[in-house]
Amino acid sequence: MGPVVAVVGGGQLARMMAEPAGALQIGLRALVEADDGAAAQVIPHATVGRADDAEAITTLVNGADVLTFEHEHVPQQVLTALVEAGVNVQPGPAALRHAQDKIVMRERMSQLGVPCPRWAAVRTEEDLLTAGARLGWPVVAKTPVGGYDGKGVSVLAGPQDAPGVVDWFTHPRGEVLLEEKVDFTRELAVLVARRPSGEMVTWPVVETIQAGGVCAEVLAPAPGLPAHLVEDAADIARTIAEGLGVTGVLAVEMFEARDGILLVNELAMRPHNSGHVTIDAAVTSQFEQHLRAVLDLPLGSTELTVPAAAMVNVLGSELTDPASAYPELMATFPDAKVHLYGKGVRPGRKLGHVTVTGTDPAEVRGRAQRAARLLQGHSAREGTR
Amino acid sequence: MGPVVAVVGGGQLARMMAEPAGALQIGLRALVEADDGAAAQVIPHATVGRADDAEAITTLVNGADVLTFEHEHVPQQVLTALVEAGVNVQPGPAALRHAQDKIVMRERMSQLGVPCPRWAAVRTEEDLLTAGARLGWPVVAKTPVGGYDGKGVSVLAGPQDAPGVVDWFTHPRGEVLLEEKVDFTRELAVLVARRPSGEMVTWPVVETIQAGGVCAEVLAPAPGLPAHLVEDAADIARTIAEGLGVTGVLAVEMFEARDGILLVNELAMRPHNSGHVTIDAAVTSQFEQHLRAVLDLPLGSTELTVPAAAMVNVLGSELTDPASAYPELMATFPDAKVHLYGKGVRPGRKLGHVTVTGTDPAEVRGRAQRAARLLQGHSAREGTR
Repeated sequence: MGPVVAVVGGGQLARMMAEPAGALQIGLRALVEADDGAAAQVIPHATVGRADDAEAITTLVNGADVLTFEHEHVPQQVLTALVEAGVNVQPGPAALRHAQDKIVMRERMSQLGVPCPRWAAVRTEEDLLTAGARLGWPVVAKTPVGGYDGKGVSVLAGPQDAPGVVDWFTHPRGEVLLEEKVDFTRELAVLVARRPSGEMVTWPVVETIQAGGVCAEVLAPAPGLPAHLVEDAADIARTIAEGLGVTGVLAVEMFEARDGILLVNELAMRPHNSGHVTIDAAVTSQFEQHLRAVLDLPLGSTELTVPAAAMVNVLGSELTDPASAYPELMATFPDAKVHLYGKGVRPGRKLGHVTVTGTDPAEVRGRAQRAARLLQGHSAREGTR
Repeated sequence: MGPVVAVVGGGQLARMMAEPAGALQIGLRALVEADDGAAAQVIPHATVGRADDAEAITTLVNGADVLTFEHEHVPQQVLTALVEAGVNVQPGPAALRHAQDKIVMRERMSQLGVPCPRWAAVRTEEDLLTAGARLGWPVVAKTPVGGYDGKGVSVLAGPQDAPGVVDWFTHPRGEVLLEEKVDFTRELAVLVARRPSGEMVTWPVVETIQAGGVCAEVLAPAPGLPAHLVEDAADIARTIAEGLGVTGVLAVEMFEARDGILLVNELAMRPHNSGHVTIDAAVTSQFEQHLRAVLDLPLGSTELTVPAAAMVNVLGSELTDPASAYPELMATFPDAKVHLYGKGVRPGRKLGHVTVTGTDPAEVRGRAQRAARLLQGHSAREGTR
């Protein structure tokens, strides 16, 4: 009864797919890392298995309409074998490659004419020094594969920092991505959803605030963004989604450079932290949309339901159980929408998020920050970053 | 990690509790009628058992913070035994009695001075005829126990209809409730949530449209309701919630009588069909609020997030799988919020609902009706009731 979606991954993204799946009577199955993880706690049909276990994935998708992902860690050979075996994989391996390998991504962005930081792929320390000089120090070095949340990213102030990343050349990929260090005023993100038959929709551009390479806050819509950049950002996202043949949700992270143009920073080919705000502030959340898109169902309205919304991540906590802050939090912020992911507390770990909606961007941001701080075991009155 | 709520019942109400439970990291357990029912499909911790099985309930609540319900069918002796054994039962047996027995409810409403239709409890056909003459034919006869969705309710046009309900006297309760047939312009409902420590909140009054004794549509807020009736309705709901010691969500169904006053019709001591609209149109849904209230957590904002919302039930369907209407529905109504309950199709059965939000009550109602009709297998263009 109803369509069935199989998802690889058992973290908070799969967990948050469970809500719209339940509402839409979509059967949701997950291949999870542990049977008590974030997703397994709320998805009855959760199977423990590794993301590179072709057999486990084949079992998971048996009887499902489509296979999708909450991360990029299913190897290409597994993906292509599944497609050859007739499995409906969305997004497909050819699209996913661009989220798995940052050099492949940069090459394709350049082909598509999408504005990006200047970049180079280097194989040796000597190449790195040459490219660094050409791009102009400081430069940003990235492992093309496997980096996330600031890991696998290093800012090289000058040639003297090159030895710090030479280990990365020993990675099977053998190359390191160098990018100019963009002088930006802020970071933005655009979510776009695309379905196999081609329909695409974008949500309003959001501002993202990072802390230590990790998304910390999101403001929707991006306050005071000039209309021509709103349009540019959506155009870029649509160009990428179409050019790469993306299906499902794609998050395009961008720099608003100091010279007033947008440059694409990173891609995520799945629901993304910058889109959590859509759960409580848009007609259709990124999680509902992802399910609709991979099932090739018509896409939902991406309109915001409120003039302003702020999402603040709960990154680590002094509390053993962040939910123990509910009495104070709920009494102080009766309009806060709290999301906790059922994960054990570790320093800096993404444990949940809080969204507050209203009319004034600064006011909703302040309230969301203070509510999130309570979940971290701090007083709501303490100063914020 | 996080509080744990055990709920008796495996229908759509328990199913819809799963969404906010996941967001708030509340462990949800359900005692369900069947392991493939509405709730069991989305709640990993679902146990099959009968609502009068004290042992099954005792096992269910072991390790939970509170026991609550999605229906009124747990017998009083089971409830009181649980309380005596130290189980935190919310709402408690003394409050629940008023939702289990309509005569007990009417007696208490009268004591509280709550405006109700004139009523009588009768034990024999002779009593019935006397009371009917006193109340003035036609009258409404109700079984005090076990009626729902129009079942156990019969309109008696005159003395000649009395034999039709004499069977009801053989019910263990032995009495039938007679009520004057109120001349009303429309039906309204107010949801109120109350927690054990006394905090209470009400949502805006909604208009409910019944079809054959079953809730068919809900308009939020009730269009054009005079301010003094908005206030009266909330006052009545708060008086009842406090007077009966209700905890969790209480739905108070009312008549807006033709002479401009409100009269209480029915009570439901749990999330209720008239509150489904709060999922997509209020800051805090009735399901989230019920969980917060029974856990004695501070209550969330009940503000509507939109000027107007309409909820239309999907009652039966010509389709074997109502989800097969998604392509047309989603393409036609990209802003419709669809909720299906995972239930098999039967004539008139509540299979799901659709909510549409916007600014004009008539427009959102029309769109929700047309979307619901698609799920029933009818063309969106056909006339509605």
